[in-house]
Amino acid sequence: MDERTALGLLGDRLSAAGDDAAVVDGQVVTTDMLHDRTDFPDGTTRYTAGWRAVGASLSDVAAMGADATAAVAVYAAPAFDESELADFVDGASEVCEAVDAEYVGGDLDHHDEFTVATTALGDADDPVRRSGARPGDAVCVTGTLGRSGAALRLFERGDPADIERANDLFRFEPRVAAGRALAGRATAMMDSSDGLARSLHQLAEASDCGFAVESPLPVDPVVDEVAADADDRLELGAHFGEDFELVCTVPEEALAAVRADLSVELTRVGTVVEREAGSASGRRGEAAETRVTLDGEPLADRGYTH
Amino acid sequence: MDERTALGLLGDRLSAAGDDAAVVDGQVVTTDMLHDRTDFPDGTTRYTAGWRAVGASLSDVAAMGADATAAVAVYAAPAFDESELADFVDGASEVCEAVDAEYVGGDLDHHDEFTVATTALGDADDPVRRSGARPGDAVCVTGTLGRSGAALRLFERGDPADIERANDLFRFEPRVAAGRALAGRATAMMDSSDGLARSLHQLAEASDCGFAVESPLPVDPVVDEVAADADDRLELGAHFGEDFELVCTVPEEALAAVRADLSVELTRVGTVVEREAGSASGRRGEAAETRVTLDGEPLADRGYTH
Repeated sequence: MDERTALGLLGDRLSAAGDDAAVVDGQVVTTDMLHDRTDFPDGTTRYTAGWRAVGASLSDVAAMGADATAAVAVYAAPAFDESELADFVDGASEVCEAVDAEYVGGDLDHHDEFTVATTALGDADDPVRRSGARPGDAVCVTGTLGRSGAALRLFERGDPADIERANDLFRFEPRVAAGRALAGRATAMMDSSDGLARSLHQLAEASDCGFAVESPLPVDPVVDEVAADADDRLELGAHFGEDFELVCTVPEEALAAVRADLSVELTRVGTVVEREAGSASGRRGEAAETRVTLDGEPLADRGYTH
Repeated sequence: MDERTALGLLGDRLSAAGDDAAVVDGQVVTTDMLHDRTDFPDGTTRYTAGWRAVGASLSDVAAMGADATAAVAVYAAPAFDESELADFVDGASEVCEAVDAEYVGGDLDHHDEFTVATTALGDADDPVRRSGARPGDAVCVTGTLGRSGAALRLFERGDPADIERANDLFRFEPRVAAGRALAGRATAMMDSSDGLARSLHQLAEASDCGFAVESPLPVDPVVDEVAADADDRLELGAHFGEDFELVCTVPEEALAAVRADLSVELTRVGTVVEREAGSASGRRGEAAETRVTLDGEPLADRGYTH
């Protein structure tokens, strides 16, 4: 059973599951696990690891349009090095400070592989779900895409300057303030942790509609430094993911007011359309593939498999 | 750096850390990680694992005297088997139901070793800390001790009936109701996850006092079935830990009223005394060792190293 099937099974059994975070009595809670081989490439500092791991959970809070309040983490490693642990806590604390939340600690555990489990909490009077997109809404994304994919290439290059830049790119600012500004206005929202393409498909599926997306996408300039060609650029920008931007749908008439309240760029990348985007065929089996189109061509429902 | 030193370092850096759970704006949050080799012996069902992992975090909520509200978990495994995952979710959901909390899901992750990270939330108007014990208070413990240590021996025996009993013993009921009844009355409290001896030392240290404990301790009858001798019985009952009972100090005059509100046995095991329990020496270096005594002899500050 792959992870998507397994998540579907969980969604069937648990009424609160199935969005970026669970909501209980106006409180948002989300948890995540990151570990060495897949999430922290060689060269990732413990400071960056703390920032990024806690930031990933704060991003899920942001994706609900919630106000982030606190985060905790379990730090599991084969051994506890004082400066590594202190760096981790500093990174975790500072990403919380960046979004006016409090890092309140957690626990330590011995584990063969460096593994971090994070949980973030938030308050949401009116959480934004994935399921409210309506035909005619603008499809938007905050910030730029592809930074984490580009960072991975820089980590692979391995020289000290590249590694330092890669660490900088890995320490993203969770879009909590943007999520707050979008709450009550965005009709559907999630974060782009699985990549823009997967996020668009998930929003379209949950909202039972299609998305017609047009280039150019807001791909970060750093991607152009590392991408081999146009296909590779699209791969890093739209499929790799882990950028933790917000992907949302906003009614046309609300767009200007939302933008006025945001301190981050909100790029309109397309329009919500009826179920089968850009396809006149309507044949079964094609529906999922044609749900999201980029410049009229199906955009594959495929992310980076972590 | 060992885990205790590392936890001390965290406590110095984070104001909210250092108790069973962190408290933020009247909300209690606690997180924990359990994994295959150390926490789930061969024979542990996924149902038991879900119950126990989530229960361990609920126990930390109980130890703050808080009302448990919700829990989440990350389930990380080399592969996702549908019935294993469903069993895990059932166990996690049922331990939450047992304490009137809601299991609201979490996340899945691929990991070489079966690893579970759990977080529980609660509400506490007046959280019970570890630091309020005063000389003269009764030292008390809920329920019985040694069940998890005995279960480990039964898992090691390995025949089906033993394994089934071991799984039953591993599925403890978190003492949330007892913690609620003790809130506002207990002067200090924590859970016995590190064993009675370590818990007593930690409470005594945080409260800057000593504990004079007298046998008999409320060791579970199952321990007598598996213990080799009296030393082994004490090892399983007082040091092994993982029983998730509440260890607390209660003013003498409140004891009868507290007991009347509890549906679980609350055994008085001793009395809070001035700093150096049962020792007239007062020499430096002996202080920590003599802080907690059992029948007048120092009770070692030693738990099971997980």
